[in-house]
Amino acid sequence: MVRRAVCPGSYDPITLGHLDVIGRAAGMFDELIVAIGHNPAKKGRFTVEERVELVAESCRDLPNVEAIQFTGLLVDLCRQRGIGTIVKGVRTGADLTYEFPMAQMNRRLTGVETVLLPSAPEWSFVSSSLVREISGYGGDVTAFVPRPVVDRLA
Amino acid sequence: MVRRAVCPGSYDPITLGHLDVIGRAAGMFDELIVAIGHNPAKKGRFTVEERVELVAESCRDLPNVEAIQFTGLLVDLCRQRGIGTIVKGVRTGADLTYEFPMAQMNRRLTGVETVLLPSAPEWSFVSSSLVREISGYGGDVTAFVPRPVVDRLA
Amino acid sequence: MVRRAVCPGSYDPITLGHLDVIGRAAGMFDELIVAIGHNPAKKGRFTVEERVELVAESCRDLPNVEAIQFTGLLVDLCRQRGIGTIVKGVRTGADLTYEFPMAQMNRRLTGVETVLLPSAPEWSFVSSSLVREISGYGGDVTAFVPRPVVDRLA
Amino acid sequence: MVRRAVCPGSYDPITLGHLDVIGRAAGMFDELIVAIGHNPAKKGRFTVEERVELVAESCRDLPNVEAIQFTGLLVDLCRQRGIGTIVKGVRTGADLTYEFPMAQMNRRLTGVETVLLPSAPEWSFVSSSLVREISGYGGDVTAFVPRPVVDRLA
Amino acid sequence: MVRRAVCPGSYDPITLGHLDVIGRAAGMFDELIVAIGHNPAKKGRFTVEERVELVAESCRDLPNVEAIQFTGLLVDLCRQRGIGTIVKGVRTGADLTYEFPMAQMNRRLTGVETVLLPSAPEWSFVSSSLVREISGYGGDVTAFVPRPVVDRLA
Amino acid sequence: MVRRAVCPGSYDPITLGHLDVIGRAAGMFDELIVAIGHNPAKKGRFTVEERVELVAESCRDLPNVEAIQFTGLLVDLCRQRGIGTIVKGVRTGADLTYEFPMAQMNRRLTGVETVLLPSAPEWSFVSSSLVREISGYGGDVTAFVPRPVVDRLA
Repeated sequence: MVRRAVCPGSYDPITLGHLDVIGRAAGMFDELIVAIGHNPAKKGRFTVEERVELVAESCRDLPNVEAIQFTGLLVDLCRQRGIGTIVKGVRTGADLTYEFPMAQMNRRLTGVETVLLPSAPEWSFVSSSLVREISGYGGDVTAFVPRPVVDRLA
Repeated sequence: MVRRAVCPGSYDPITLGHLDVIGRAAGMFDELIVAIGHNPAKKGRFTVEERVELVAESCRDLPNVEAIQFTGLLVDLCRQRGIGTIVKGVRTGADLTYEFPMAQMNRRLTGVETVLLPSAPEWSFVSSSLVREISGYGGDVTAFVPRPVVDRLA
Repeated sequence: MVRRAVCPGSYDPITLGHLDVIGRAAGMFDELIVAIGHNPAKKGRFTVEERVELVAESCRDLPNVEAIQFTGLLVDLCRQRGIGTIVKGVRTGADLTYEFPMAQMNRRLTGVETVLLPSAPEWSFVSSSLVREISGYGGDVTAFVPRPVVDRLA
Repeated sequence: MVRRAVCPGSYDPITLGHLDVIGRAAGMFDELIVAIGHNPAKKGRFTVEERVELVAESCRDLPNVEAIQFTGLLVDLCRQRGIGTIVKGVRTGADLTYEFPMAQMNRRLTGVETVLLPSAPEWSFVSSSLVREISGYGGDVTAFVPRPVVDRLA
Repeated sequence: MVRRAVCPGSYDPITLGHLDVIGRAAGMFDELIVAIGHNPAKKGRFTVEERVELVAESCRDLPNVEAIQFTGLLVDLCRQRGIGTIVKGVRTGADLTYEFPMAQMNRRLTGVETVLLPSAPEWSFVSSSLVREISGYGGDVTAFVPRPVVDRLA
Repeated sequence: MVRRAVCPGSYDPITLGHLDVIGRAAGMFDELIVAIGHNPAKKGRFTVEERVELVAESCRDLPNVEAIQFTGLLVDLCRQRGIGTIVKGVRTGADLTYEFPMAQMNRRLTGVETVLLPSAPEWSFVSSSLVREISGYGGDVTAFVPRPVVDRLA
């Protein structure tokens, strides 16, 4: 049986914190899909196509990771792709509070499980929104995002 | 490669909330070890031998689950048994706050991962300590613990 | 003395979690007003008139419950209607953090009390926003909302 | 129908924060029982008899409040005395996290409801344990406890 | 060496809770800059110029406090003005969860420290957003904001 | 005016997380006293004399830091030594919840301020209790405690 998992998110842009979670999840499952949410109503820093590309480039060394664009219900994606587990990195108790109802709802809807992965301490303060804010004001985010994102921001 | 995980705890006694987490973790890994902590300094409701027995009986239908007694560092057990993942059920943000430093420390010490599994809503308020308190005063805990525990408490 | 309470909210739409809280509050007070907030600046899934109607239909079996549309300060409504207690369902510590300052402010402004009712475990993960998201993508929310909402969504 | 509620706790000793919650709860119910927990295994600052007496003296102006000693399960007391509601003061999200499983368990066991009352801001930092610590080292707690406690500590 | 600190925020409008934190911080440092964030994309209740003025008038009795308008990265302001410490008032664990990643990020970027000051209990429930909501509906906020804000709102 | 602060704790033993907070606090104040709590009722891993010695040795390079043994109320120590500020490192929202009432109580008792310093991400999971547990079972804690503690544990 192939064990498939998904790491959903907006990845606007992917950070080294995301990459750490993805790498660890890729080591736990046979196949890992990084599903990049597409919200037409919300203008991001990068388009969803750019975000997919940046994730794909950043994960080039992880052969069992696939980056895809995604819209709709996560549980529908899981059904279509035979995904049994959702993996979410969590940084704080507040993250957990946010993830809990979604995890319980998703399990209730289709039986799909959610596992929460505690962030590595060194990335616990890194988020896409802080990266966007810092780089938006000309600050240096080289230490917080993968190389492809650094290049694109330059 | 065999994927081995451990569900550590004191299980004094095992509850239906524990059993739910164990069953779900057993579905995610090839082998699951339920490691029942032995703390000689602390007198429990049941001896560690009884607790191991109650877990084993409660998990009889889960062929890839093994209940063992355990003392010392969890990471040492993981090394000895080739366990790559620690699985912990979490019920609240407070649980997460407690699990976080241990998860990060264990990963730092030996690279072993910890994944957190959100409790099922129907067991979110059930704990061994509440079960001990209720049954200690003669209350009925039949709805909260597996059959073998009900029998032993009777 | 008639004891009157209010359950304020946006109820867009009412869920079975809301209905559980309303039913329990209706059992604690002589009269219960469900006050459905009207925010002209925010476009909801349902109009405030529809939301009032859905609450009223869902509470048909609760004779001491009245559903009304509401705008302005909650404490003003309480004064006009002789309401002494605000009842809020809480699901998590995060909910409490949100309710606390409002409860303390409302008590300070006019002496009205706020009591918090822990959600039933089976509804702890259900919210109007998750219901809107799921049904918006064609998912089935029958298990989470009262019959009148199911019918309206169909 | 007489509406009866209970404020359980160890009250070792009663503080002005407790008294504020008791007074507010007494205004919401016809009869309020303050149930002072008796734990033979734990040596308190005051005996349970002293604690009952201090609560009773502090609540002298609240005619519908009765202070009693209590051991066993709270739900059994509720059944014996016809109490339909448990009232707990909460100061922080951490308090809520502690009260939640007990509230849900008690409701599940016998249907008794728990309502949580946000503490008044001015008492949010006052607890029996801080009072014991301060007065144990000779500090002045006059501002935090009712007059009868001040007298007893003197 | 002159010790300089900054209290950043949107102050829309300044509250007595803000003023309490500013006064305490002013007592800890030689110079205190109150930096009022200017977000062109977000329409506030008051313009940034009005907010600066209201802070300045409210702090008239604090000779070492300066109110300025500010846009961009806080760490850049700190560098330009020789500020070594960021001071933030915190009211709840939720506030801390919000401040933590920013504090750690700011320290990582330039070494600037952030110290968190627990709010005074009497202001723990007061926020600019509640003040805006209450006064927007004609409620009385005299007890929660400095005199200059009361005058401007009138 | 000499600015004096205190870092209270049990330091059983001092960790690199403690040392990071002490070093940062020492940079903010003219004199910093590390007050090591002496609780005769509680047997620690190290005696209070050993703990004072280990803190003193670990802080040898911080000339304005003094390690002392301490019993009684912290506010009394502050009065005796002319200390105006208590500095506490905080790692999580749970830490804050614990520190809040003590900070507000101490300010109320004598006006002494408490400032909270967010822990550095790399030490956020390190605590004396985890260090005691790991080293108690023969694990290696070299990466988490200052050199003098490593030597003493060997």
